[in-house]
Amino acid sequence: MSADPARVEIIALAGLPEIQAGDDLAALIGDALAATPGALPLAPGDVVVVTQKVVSKAEGAVVDLRTVEPRPDAVTWAERWDRDPRAIEVVLREARRVVRMEKGVLITETPQGFVCANGGVDASNVGPASGDLVTLLPVDPDASAAGIRAALRTRFGADLAVVISDSFGRPWRWGIVDVALGVAGLHPLEDLRGVPDADGRVMKTTVRAVADEIASAAELALGKTAGRPVALVRGANPPLGEDSIQSALIPADTDLFR
Amino acid sequence: MSADPARVEIIALAGLPEIQAGDDLAALIGDALAATPGALPLAPGDVVVVTQKVVSKAEGAVVDLRTVEPRPDAVTWAERWDRDPRAIEVVLREARRVVRMEKGVLITETPQGFVCANGGVDASNVGPASGDLVTLLPVDPDASAAGIRAALRTRFGADLAVVISDSFGRPWRWGIVDVALGVAGLHPLEDLRGVPDADGRVMKTTVRAVADEIASAAELALGKTAGRPVALVRGANPPLGEDSIQSALIPADTDLFR
Repeated sequence: MSADPARVEIIALAGLPEIQAGDDLAALIGDALAATPGALPLAPGDVVVVTQKVVSKAEGAVVDLRTVEPRPDAVTWAERWDRDPRAIEVVLREARRVVRMEKGVLITETPQGFVCANGGVDASNVGPASGDLVTLLPVDPDASAAGIRAALRTRFGADLAVVISDSFGRPWRWGIVDVALGVAGLHPLEDLRGVPDADGRVMKTTVRAVADEIASAAELALGKTAGRPVALVRGANPPLGEDSIQSALIPADTDLFR
Repeated sequence: MSADPARVEIIALAGLPEIQAGDDLAALIGDALAATPGALPLAPGDVVVVTQKVVSKAEGAVVDLRTVEPRPDAVTWAERWDRDPRAIEVVLREARRVVRMEKGVLITETPQGFVCANGGVDASNVGPASGDLVTLLPVDPDASAAGIRAALRTRFGADLAVVISDSFGRPWRWGIVDVALGVAGLHPLEDLRGVPDADGRVMKTTVRAVADEIASAAELALGKTAGRPVALVRGANPPLGEDSIQSALIPADTDLFR
């Protein structure tokens, strides 16, 4: 279990350029760390949070909708709900299963196992004059995180954890919060079951979704419109170790909201 | 819309005693702010995040299970899933509706409109030697937040926002994250629809659940076992104004996961 911090600092990194397919994202994040006052040296337990959009762009996980021929069902549904039928087609192509497709909302399970609106396919912040471009989720966000972590460890000679984040809606509550899509160097969950609480009572059910909370905290510093895609979260001291975001996903046959 | 911050700081407040029914929680939080290095003076956009448990305890929203006679259905279900039938009875009494009651998981909609496991009824951290005590949610968490805000404004002569937080599970992902139960002085959502993104494209669907993200960020500094129930979140600069957490709740007839 990690130490219990009293202060957490979230620093939006300065100086990242517009990301293009093929860019060395880890090198650019390293440059941004070096350019951000107070970010270096890295401290134990530091987490670099990278938003999905720049990862997808660097990895070329982008689709030009002008190349997409929507199936008739996608055209019908998109017309009814004022959506782009080509984007609906992309979501359905990527989907492992459709969880909900009603009232203009399309929720799917992605190949990575995430259940989210539009399968994570997103048109905002893709690039200048990018009316027909959408990003897909990174193919393997854990691998994306691991690659960035390895490069930054080598460059700065210090360990760190990396979280790839994305904005998901939730049932029952309006609005989106950032959650973890991929992790490297930390466990997405901290399991306190069996640990005494402040009164010495053994807690029965507390599992902290710490990677998701770190992603949400980072979003507070990044915002949605500022062109800042990477944050450093210092002092959260998550449980460190080798793990996968898959540890945090409920299998479809166990979930109560299929 | 709020200014876009580049740094956010989360400070767990020092020095809160064990909270008892009838305690002046706002006064104790004020003392803790004064006792925590760097917390004062309050800065514009500061948010004090108070976890549900201490609010419920101060307000006397506590039930002694020794006074509860469970209905037969509660006894049967509790025995099957190794739960306390008296706690199940309390959850069912409080519930506006039962959303799911299967596989040992009981999810209800509370009188306040929250959909959560066990209706927010919780046995951990209730007090020393408290084997038979559980907390209920505060009756009106917005009012709880408003009361704390008003007292702190008067004491320190500066405005601030207050969020009452609690830990909720989510469909599809393991673990719990802190979300907002009540707000005072801020809007729980920041609606960026119609605002240009970093590329000048008008964003169609982005509504940030900023109060929930602030609650999650605070949890990173508070942890679950450390006896620290209040945090100051500085620099997130949420949209300020008079509002209610009800703004963030999807009505049952609109939700896709009833």
